[in-house]
Amino acid sequence: MDALVCEKVDQAVALLDEFEVDAWLTFVRETSATGESVIPMILGRHLTWQSALILTRRGERIAIVGNYDADLVRDSGAWRDVVTYVQDIRDPLRDALSRLNPARIAVNFSRDDFIADGLSHGLWLLLHDYLSGTPFADRLVSAERIVGALRGRKSAAEVQRIRDVVRETEQIFEEAGRFLAPGRTEAEVAAFMQSVARRRGLELAWDATGCPIVNAGPESAIGHAVPSTSIRIEPGHVVHIDFGVRRGLFCSDLQRCWYVPRPGESQPPHRVQQAFDAVVASIDAASLALRPGVEGWQVDAAARNRLLELGYPEYQHGTGHHLGRAVHDGGGTLGPRWERYGQTPYRKVEAGNVFTLELGVYSNGEHGAIGLEEDVLVAADGVEWLSTPQRRLWTIRSKD
Amino acid sequence: MDALVCEKVDQAVALLDEFEVDAWLTFVRETSATGESVIPMILGRHLTWQSALILTRRGERIAIVGNYDADLVRDSGAWRDVVTYVQDIRDPLRDALSRLNPARIAVNFSRDDFIADGLSHGLWLLLHDYLSGTPFADRLVSAERIVGALRGRKSAAEVQRIRDVVRETEQIFEEAGRFLAPGRTEAEVAAFMQSVARRRGLELAWDATGCPIVNAGPESAIGHAVPSTSIRIEPGHVVHIDFGVRRGLFCSDLQRCWYVPRPGESQPPHRVQQAFDAVVASIDAASLALRPGVEGWQVDAAARNRLLELGYPEYQHGTGHHLGRAVHDGGGTLGPRWERYGQTPYRKVEAGNVFTLELGVYSNGEHGAIGLEEDVLVAADGVEWLSTPQRRLWTIRSKD
Repeated sequence: MDALVCEKVDQAVALLDEFEVDAWLTFVRETSATGESVIPMILGRHLTWQSALILTRRGERIAIVGNYDADLVRDSGAWRDVVTYVQDIRDPLRDALSRLNPARIAVNFSRDDFIADGLSHGLWLLLHDYLSGTPFADRLVSAERIVGALRGRKSAAEVQRIRDVVRETEQIFEEAGRFLAPGRTEAEVAAFMQSVARRRGLELAWDATGCPIVNAGPESAIGHAVPSTSIRIEPGHVVHIDFGVRRGLFCSDLQRCWYVPRPGESQPPHRVQQAFDAVVASIDAASLALRPGVEGWQVDAAARNRLLELGYPEYQHGTGHHLGRAVHDGGGTLGPRWERYGQTPYRKVEAGNVFTLELGVYSNGEHGAIGLEEDVLVAADGVEWLSTPQRRLWTIRSKD
Repeated sequence: MDALVCEKVDQAVALLDEFEVDAWLTFVRETSATGESVIPMILGRHLTWQSALILTRRGERIAIVGNYDADLVRDSGAWRDVVTYVQDIRDPLRDALSRLNPARIAVNFSRDDFIADGLSHGLWLLLHDYLSGTPFADRLVSAERIVGALRGRKSAAEVQRIRDVVRETEQIFEEAGRFLAPGRTEAEVAAFMQSVARRRGLELAWDATGCPIVNAGPESAIGHAVPSTSIRIEPGHVVHIDFGVRRGLFCSDLQRCWYVPRPGESQPPHRVQQAFDAVVASIDAASLALRPGVEGWQVDAAARNRLLELGYPEYQHGTGHHLGRAVHDGGGTLGPRWERYGQTPYRKVEAGNVFTLELGVYSNGEHGAIGLEEDVLVAADGVEWLSTPQRRLWTIRSKD
């Protein structure tokens, strides 16, 4: 029995009732190669042939799978009714739907939310083929609200796992802080942090090519960039690192900053300190705006406007994203109302959501980029910080 | 520069010419959470916002990506023209297509082949939205033949990587053979093999829950099953193991069998030996049928009919699947003409394909399942074995 899977399946049944959807159909094949993102939540194992996982508002839990997948599905403990087939899923699928006769069948497609968009277009066509001649093909609706809520409303067990992996990430940042020194390249810093993560048995939260992102000084590329083998940490630089790891199913995502004093400097230059303080103040503005019921773009606007008021340029990304089973998790975003975010900035924040809050001042003359990223839980009355927010610009001490 | 990625992108350009398609458009977002299976082949890095990777028959290589992803895309070395946007991909996408004016634009959807079906239904809708009012929405065709060939026709570098990981898997099987002993549970054997793989720095090729699959004796569940913590290896049992690992991008997938002698037995019972020999003969029949130009179902039929002729029941799965970047790779299958395989058994085998050949006699009285799986490369004139085929039923020796 897989307790985390059973918990999510129970939660999904309650969501069907809340959203007044009779049945939720997850239709998949070869999930290990295709990555339907709800499968780890509601099954936690991979399926090979065409498979239909059907949950109903009344609580039925029906898995129609190829014969050789049945044992794995039963092993999850979450699917009461496991139906197998050898040659063709068409008849058992049509039979199950005829028996249930749902008026609305939610399936996993979404124009806006990638995490609720696991149904491939070819499977959409195949599903219509299988349902042709039945009334069910015309009853398909998007499951985006169900998937978004299931993904976004974290249980206590899920939050605890995120909290733990965030704490481990902070410990890696502490080790990194002791490793940072003038003369080291960005790539050396990245390799060091990856080795610490490996030693702790953690996976990286995103592509190894750019996890961590390390920026030393003004020549470094901003964004999802590759740490340079030629750019070295120098006095006068800001060192900015964006890093996340994964323990089991759950991820962290944090950004931290250091300043490298020049000879005789007892504190960072005014320009650097002021920009750092503006970033902290803008993240604080987001955290104060973030509470159940607000729309994501309002949180983004609180931070964005604060930074603009303080005289800094607008950052060209959203202020935060869901965090959990994916490092950029879906179901809504704390982003501006730009087309690239679709309708996701209009989603309402809910209690139990976990978000990043992240922004920066990326151009600071000869010093380099400043950026911070915190991980927070939305509680009933505001945020709880899962990370210990960085409020002081750290200093890289010379090693000699 | 990523040599393996550049090689695949060059190969793709040639395929566009072969299949007379003007442009191939891979349209994605948040690939780390959604798993579009061509991205590791043609980019090898993840993309965040809506992104369009456009290859043309004339050799243009255009990547339209969100501003913060540009550095990663350039780092691949495979995309000459990197176009960035901040708020909205619509205009740069329409501009690029207008300039290229392709008569046929292949996109990644396929009713039958999961590996060519990475375009989600929501992205399909979004793409139509972005292209509305242009002639291009009506020029979209399936890229399944391009993706299948790109995936299936392995380069020498790709074959070498598969060969290496198959060899490592055989070494793990050798270690497992020394570990197997009466009294050990299936789960203990599985844990041992996983620990050996970990020690060697390998990943498992599929879900840890059932990788390896271990079957000891007649009570064990067949298929993608979970090794039992209560079923123990006993004299008289066949022990059957299905295991695969991954090194970097490439996978192996093998099945091996042992017999556990009862007191006084100097060789396996006739029934067991005969079934084992029939399995070997049927895999040999498949290997003789497997050559460029045949359709997959013909290879399946050669093995299936051989086993039936020898008096054994029909196995309820295909005789083989592509192997490479996914353990069940797409682009065609050596399977029977059942609906669950769609049109994939009709795909023609090509030189450079790597397949598994696998089948079994799963019911052998009190002894348990016999199954073998080999990995082979299709050469111009027949198969080259990547694994050393098991032709003798191995014996588990008592450890005392």
